[in-house]
Amino acid sequence: MRKRPVQAPSRADARADSGAGPGIGTVPGPDAGRVACATLSAVEVADPRALRRAIRAGRHRAHTVGLAPGRVQGNLVILPQALAADFLRFCLRNPKPCPVLAVTEPGDPRVPELGEDLDLRTDVPRYRVWRGGALQGEVDDLRTLWRDDFVGFVLGCSFSFEQALLEDGIPLRHVSQGRNVAMYRTTIPTAPAGPFAGPLVVSMRPMTPAHAIRAIQVTSRFPSVHGAPVHFGDPAAIGIADLGRPDYGDPVDVLPGEVPVFWACGVTPQAALLAARPEICMTHAPGCMLVSDRFNTELAAF
Amino acid sequence: MRKRPVQAPSRADARADSGAGPGIGTVPGPDAGRVACATLSAVEVADPRALRRAIRAGRHRAHTVGLAPGRVQGNLVILPQALAADFLRFCLRNPKPCPVLAVTEPGDPRVPELGEDLDLRTDVPRYRVWRGGALQGEVDDLRTLWRDDFVGFVLGCSFSFEQALLEDGIPLRHVSQGRNVAMYRTTIPTAPAGPFAGPLVVSMRPMTPAHAIRAIQVTSRFPSVHGAPVHFGDPAAIGIADLGRPDYGDPVDVLPGEVPVFWACGVTPQAALLAARPEICMTHAPGCMLVSDRFNTELAAF
Repeated sequence: MRKRPVQAPSRADARADSGAGPGIGTVPGPDAGRVACATLSAVEVADPRALRRAIRAGRHRAHTVGLAPGRVQGNLVILPQALAADFLRFCLRNPKPCPVLAVTEPGDPRVPELGEDLDLRTDVPRYRVWRGGALQGEVDDLRTLWRDDFVGFVLGCSFSFEQALLEDGIPLRHVSQGRNVAMYRTTIPTAPAGPFAGPLVVSMRPMTPAHAIRAIQVTSRFPSVHGAPVHFGDPAAIGIADLGRPDYGDPVDVLPGEVPVFWACGVTPQAALLAARPEICMTHAPGCMLVSDRFNTELAAF
Repeated sequence: MRKRPVQAPSRADARADSGAGPGIGTVPGPDAGRVACATLSAVEVADPRALRRAIRAGRHRAHTVGLAPGRVQGNLVILPQALAADFLRFCLRNPKPCPVLAVTEPGDPRVPELGEDLDLRTDVPRYRVWRGGALQGEVDDLRTLWRDDFVGFVLGCSFSFEQALLEDGIPLRHVSQGRNVAMYRTTIPTAPAGPFAGPLVVSMRPMTPAHAIRAIQVTSRFPSVHGAPVHFGDPAAIGIADLGRPDYGDPVDVLPGEVPVFWACGVTPQAALLAARPEICMTHAPGCMLVSDRFNTELAAF
């Protein structure tokens, strides 16, 4: 197991639910993506199975933003079986922040419903290993760490609905400004399960009311990637004291005539997971997502 | 043709798009409804065809709120054929405020798609007759006025989506307070067609952001009865100077923690119609709607 130097995780520099992963840290910027892609062929950039094969072969260790366009990318969580039932129950009780796309059989690293060849031990560009809730390090694969009692969870991420919003002509400021989406801990509690509990974390995207109405329609079609917003307007109503100081990610401006719109965020289960201090758990490294064969459009409920 | 005494129409006392009709005036309160219903049998209150038969026989000349529950009620406009193509084009260019449920053949008072027996000359409890855009009077039926060149339009009304909102547990203040919904002329222009033009008129319902998000989902399912809102929040952004002074209907309070949510309103085509000063046109009297056989739930797009 090769280890990479990592910085201590900080709540202030996380990537979006999707990108952030439980390993809360910075995501490489677009330039890093372009450099990384220089190691990939055109087919590998476009085709999810070819991309996974390249990752498995060690030829891509960077983030996956913009790769395999149109395909579902997911947050990865791997836990010992002893905690898996509690975590799954936590996800099912909080479906907006914790949309479960797939759960593996104990000990089985395969997720055939997301990709026939998919192997959770090797197909993510970079993993984070956590012990007792603290970051131990980043690794390139989980082959030496894998145990017969590990259970993998793939959770939907907002990349899917952001694609739908952008394709619908709704601008996303954090995307146009090349920043991480702004995320906030709220005073809305999650429904606990076993050791898993904590506040709902939301991501915020500022938009005009007309765009917000359309965004509510568009994201309502995608319940498995957070679905419709949970709030808009007054941040204090959900316990956010200062929009300019997000708990994770970067602040973005809310311009005159815009309202902040808040979606349930995949950092919610990640924060609940680490707060429970499991003996060991593994996640994707920020921005280094699991790339599946499924099309984002397949996730539309109608 | 029996005439009834009427008051001059006033912009300040109109009933909702639905209720208001182009004849802008007050709607009888709930008590009037109960009194009126005393003349109807239980079957006539519940069954749309029996209700229309009672209206045709002259046994119900009051508003239709709460009658034939669950069935689609529509705004009625009858115009000479010379203007009908322009008006239809106006409606089609402005589908949110002017959702066309049915258009008749010239001279034909039947609308079989809304009710096999339905007759536009007799099946509305009370009609308004307009000449040159001015109210001439109210009549009980159009049998003596009917001409071979008349074309009838039935437009969707917000009763249908309000039923869906109430059944979803979303309170509507104007309903609970027994008031008319508040309506406002905006600075949003409609797309003109022939002599028909004018500002978008909106109805306003105050709600919490969580209810507003759900209301956007629910009403998005009903594009043929105004669909999703056109705006929420800052009234000035759409040219409304004072929420406390609606152009039609009654003011309703916006409580702390609530935002005003604005839907396109059926008064839009009615105002455009009268502003065009057609030689003659007829509408339902406020609150005295055309009751169809169709179920509100049939109008759900998904």
